[in-house]
Amino acid sequence: MVTTAMARAAGYRVFALTIDYNQRHRIELEAAARIATLLGAERHVVMPLDLTRFGGSALTDASIAVPKDGVEPGIPVTYVPARNTIFLSLALGWAEAVGAHDLVIGVNALDYSGYPDCRPTFISAFETMASAATRDGVEGQPFKVHTPLIDMTKADIVRAGLDLGLDLGLSWSCYDPRADGTPCGACDSCRLRAKGFAEAGAADGRLA
Amino acid sequence: MVTTAMARAAGYRVFALTIDYNQRHRIELEAAARIATLLGAERHVVMPLDLTRFGGSALTDASIAVPKDGVEPGIPVTYVPARNTIFLSLALGWAEAVGAHDLVIGVNALDYSGYPDCRPTFISAFETMASAATRDGVEGQPFKVHTPLIDMTKADIVRAGLDLGLDLGLSWSCYDPRADGTPCGACDSCRLRAKGFAEAGAADGRLA
Repeated sequence: MVTTAMARAAGYRVFALTIDYNQRHRIELEAAARIATLLGAERHVVMPLDLTRFGGSALTDASIAVPKDGVEPGIPVTYVPARNTIFLSLALGWAEAVGAHDLVIGVNALDYSGYPDCRPTFISAFETMASAATRDGVEGQPFKVHTPLIDMTKADIVRAGLDLGLDLGLSWSCYDPRADGTPCGACDSCRLRAKGFAEAGAADGRLA
Repeated sequence: MVTTAMARAAGYRVFALTIDYNQRHRIELEAAARIATLLGAERHVVMPLDLTRFGGSALTDASIAVPKDGVEPGIPVTYVPARNTIFLSLALGWAEAVGAHDLVIGVNALDYSGYPDCRPTFISAFETMASAATRDGVEGQPFKVHTPLIDMTKADIVRAGLDLGLDLGLSWSCYDPRADGTPCGACDSCRLRAKGFAEAGAADGRLA
């Protein structure tokens, strides 16, 4: 949400892409639709891509539990193999189809779960690959992957969102929502979100 | 087909991945299923991914005609933006989920249509990116993208297939099949295939 608002504030037209990968927290798709409309996305494509056919993650295999005991060192089982590579590849394809060259993704490598595909090293390697992979790339119009949140703390992100006038309660973070559609409060994503609001001294509208 | 047979001949267990991207030549999905079974793939996933939602190619937008006047210099309108990046990203995700580190793709950069994502430069950049993107990559188990056909002529590929005892007539190439399920004979893919069989001095079982 903050990433999209930043892109709009910077003057970009927004073509929003959401992947319905049959994630455990599919409820986030509802938040994505609300946010795309609210922030004036020119188009919003929700692309079905059933990654449960591959599995290998607590988010795509119902038999692997989401950890609830706090953020641990190392890469947790909520890591979805190659997820951001897949997401950015789809964004790259859509961007080239519509003549765009700026991809924007809200990855964060500071207050995060240690996912390899959230780090600057990955983003840089993806950009290099994208320029070799595409018609526009080889014809001198490279693609830029913007990561405005990558070196911000979660508190910085909360503050940036509030400065942009956003109702952050419209966003969704939890990996393992309860049956009643409320966040679990114990997964890494809930913990990192709570840490951000607490350190920013702000209330989380989602929990109000 | 030749790529898969080569992988089998080299002793690999094969996990076959086919993308149903709502391509104009969806008939190739039937050939893929036949080939996966025939060549003893351990699993075959057909992943639906509707790239017509992005468009931008004669293969994913019914309003863009497939060229029929011969292979021209430059990148033709049958180029699907970032297609092989998307395909390899999905293969990467599945590979990491099942503990595989060898991806195999039948790209060819000699008798081909000039697609940027068939060239060694792209493959190499993808490998570098894959190692930065994944848990296994950062933990010292990099992924290798094998491209056994990349510097072969189409005639070399036909000969290699015959040497492996394959019925190449089971494979499919045409981008724009006729309503009766036969190849058009005039698109780039039909022309390159015919050139291969002619130069190898072999008959194309597909056309028998």
